[in-house]
Amino acid sequence: MKVNHNFANIAQSYLFSTIAQKVADYTAAHPDAPVIRMGIGDVTLPLPQASIDAMHAAVDELSHQESFRGYGPEQGYDFLKDAIQAYYASHGTQLESDEIFVSDGAKSDVGNILDLFDQDNTVLVPDPVYPVYVDTNTMAGRKILYMDANESNGFLPLPDPAVKADIIYLCSPNNPTGAVYDRAGLKAWVDYALANQAVILFDAAYECFVADENLPRSIFEIEGAKKCAIEFCSFSKTAGFTGTRCGYTVVPLELEFEGMNLNKMWLRRQTTKFNGVAYIVQRGAAAVFTEEGVKQVQEHLDYYRENARILADAMDELGIWYTGGKNSPYIWLKCPNGMESWEFFDYLLENANVVGTPGAGFGENGKNFFRLTAFGDRDKTKEAVERIKKLLS
Amino acid sequence: MKVNHNFANIAQSYLFSTIAQKVADYTAAHPDAPVIRMGIGDVTLPLPQASIDAMHAAVDELSHQESFRGYGPEQGYDFLKDAIQAYYASHGTQLESDEIFVSDGAKSDVGNILDLFDQDNTVLVPDPVYPVYVDTNTMAGRKILYMDANESNGFLPLPDPAVKADIIYLCSPNNPTGAVYDRAGLKAWVDYALANQAVILFDAAYECFVADENLPRSIFEIEGAKKCAIEFCSFSKTAGFTGTRCGYTVVPLELEFEGMNLNKMWLRRQTTKFNGVAYIVQRGAAAVFTEEGVKQVQEHLDYYRENARILADAMDELGIWYTGGKNSPYIWLKCPNGMESWEFFDYLLENANVVGTPGAGFGENGKNFFRLTAFGDRDKTKEAVERIKKLLS
Repeated sequence: MKVNHNFANIAQSYLFSTIAQKVADYTAAHPDAPVIRMGIGDVTLPLPQASIDAMHAAVDELSHQESFRGYGPEQGYDFLKDAIQAYYASHGTQLESDEIFVSDGAKSDVGNILDLFDQDNTVLVPDPVYPVYVDTNTMAGRKILYMDANESNGFLPLPDPAVKADIIYLCSPNNPTGAVYDRAGLKAWVDYALANQAVILFDAAYECFVADENLPRSIFEIEGAKKCAIEFCSFSKTAGFTGTRCGYTVVPLELEFEGMNLNKMWLRRQTTKFNGVAYIVQRGAAAVFTEEGVKQVQEHLDYYRENARILADAMDELGIWYTGGKNSPYIWLKCPNGMESWEFFDYLLENANVVGTPGAGFGENGKNFFRLTAFGDRDKTKEAVERIKKLLS
Repeated sequence: MKVNHNFANIAQSYLFSTIAQKVADYTAAHPDAPVIRMGIGDVTLPLPQASIDAMHAAVDELSHQESFRGYGPEQGYDFLKDAIQAYYASHGTQLESDEIFVSDGAKSDVGNILDLFDQDNTVLVPDPVYPVYVDTNTMAGRKILYMDANESNGFLPLPDPAVKADIIYLCSPNNPTGAVYDRAGLKAWVDYALANQAVILFDAAYECFVADENLPRSIFEIEGAKKCAIEFCSFSKTAGFTGTRCGYTVVPLELEFEGMNLNKMWLRRQTTKFNGVAYIVQRGAAAVFTEEGVKQVQEHLDYYRENARILADAMDELGIWYTGGKNSPYIWLKCPNGMESWEFFDYLLENANVVGTPGAGFGENGKNFFRLTAFGDRDKTKEAVERIKKLLS
């Protein structure tokens, strides 16, 4: 049996394990140090009560033969797809029900969607980048091109007509930079994709953080996108589902390449290699869209947004260049005094007892940048900011 | 962008849609006909109370910030992996914790495992076969060979030394035939795989139905299997998790091909393209292994087994040849009077108002066979058996 040798080409990432080791070493040497962790993009607030109530009710349903649910539709129950469709409509985007596929999270689908594409395609990703885009394509043996995201373009690169790419990854609001494309930016990408018969894989996992109505939440707000784009969404950051696992992927009915319909292909892929998301979880996700669910989620988002604002205000005060902080839970700051990101990591850990993520972990262009997240506790966020301000001012 | 044209080669299966259409047509013409459905392999009993209680508790944990759980380990929580490890040990198979990967179901992993293999491998599947094995490999462009499972080998084909295969699918207890390999049969396959540097993908989704202690529940009961096999298991049939979605895959630490370690590759695949199973669901699955969980699951299995026994006894009484019925929830019977399976389907629907699954839907060798399932209601199973006996005796 011949193994897939492309696995040997996947870069081993030691980013989070190195961070964990450095923090462990530091706390072992300084057991009383009040370390504040702002490195990992995981939520901390509990699930919205509406989801809790809905999941309790769903568990009860499964305890009685009359209301028991076995295999459900692989692409998700209508009650959830209808709610997602209405959510899109409330932001001005019309979707057909058959364009929505419920998943166990954006990460799974961002990887699995590659089943639909030939190995012989050129992939375009930004640098810095969420490593999953690179690793999943390396695994499949595809050629990867990088585009520079940097200070001069606000970490929002636009298409270069001279570059020929077939599969383009865009993430907006971006992980790790927090930068958000405006409509003109996305339109440039849609135009490029249509002109080059390329497909855009649009990672909208952080769309719920978009507060500015002038910024798009969905690539399908852009004319023509249904002919070139697939969108990946998640309940992870919206409703704290990082450990509860639910997302959805939108594959337009009219998306066709070389005479093959990608919506039909994805339906076939999912019915063959997936068996749907747990009924209980889908009920919890649907509750996010109820009147009380919307209110509760908004309170959580406001909490994280206020954390982000506190971080952003501190950067403004310190005169530190950054992206994100608004319309995003991430702050991507330029390391002060020309420091490199790992150097700044050590400096911040040792002198402020604050842990963040070195930008170098996301690519060459991140080597002088640093990510802080707004998913932490309010008081700890304030305390971290005070320490950072004291250290850097 | 070039699509994966292998999708055009996947056979469209109309099996269950054709069945549904035929039943709909019949009931429209005969609205009062008391149709009994024994065609689909889905469970009907509710979840065990131990799982219900554990899931309620887990939902509550997620409602408080102190006990909230975000991202978990992609390969599953230790509390569940430990329980699975102990379950294997109780049947005499020792596993390392790192050999166990919790999944959202056997179907997902049976498909996704193919990421580890080169396209240029020859796949060997039995005919008749669970269509997912064929479709997932067709999608990936692999060559597929079929081996005859038939009346003369009891639908348990043994290796043919003249056939060279790289990836071998075995399912025991089998879907759709209910046939179960004994140790000698599995040993022949392990020996073949070791001699030919092939990998065995062992689908053990129905292992919980094995009651005969002389029959293996796991391929790892066979010496040498850890050097050639991967095993896929599920809580779907064990504990009624078809709509709750949890399974596990065992990839031995010592499984290596061409110098690459498949356990490490699968870990990398899962951490890159999967984010773990919902915490709530993992708690529900772990409860299956508690003292009360084991007892409750046993009651459910006994219920289905008794249904299977009732079906098997009727076949014995009628002198109809079949496999399964013991150590399996499926009865795979030879259609009487030389009928073909679709012909028998119509005959049974029209004259006994009983719905089963025509064997032709699982492959050429199924064209004179018919599948009945034991997952239904006891009284309806008895009633169906009475009608079948009346019709065929």
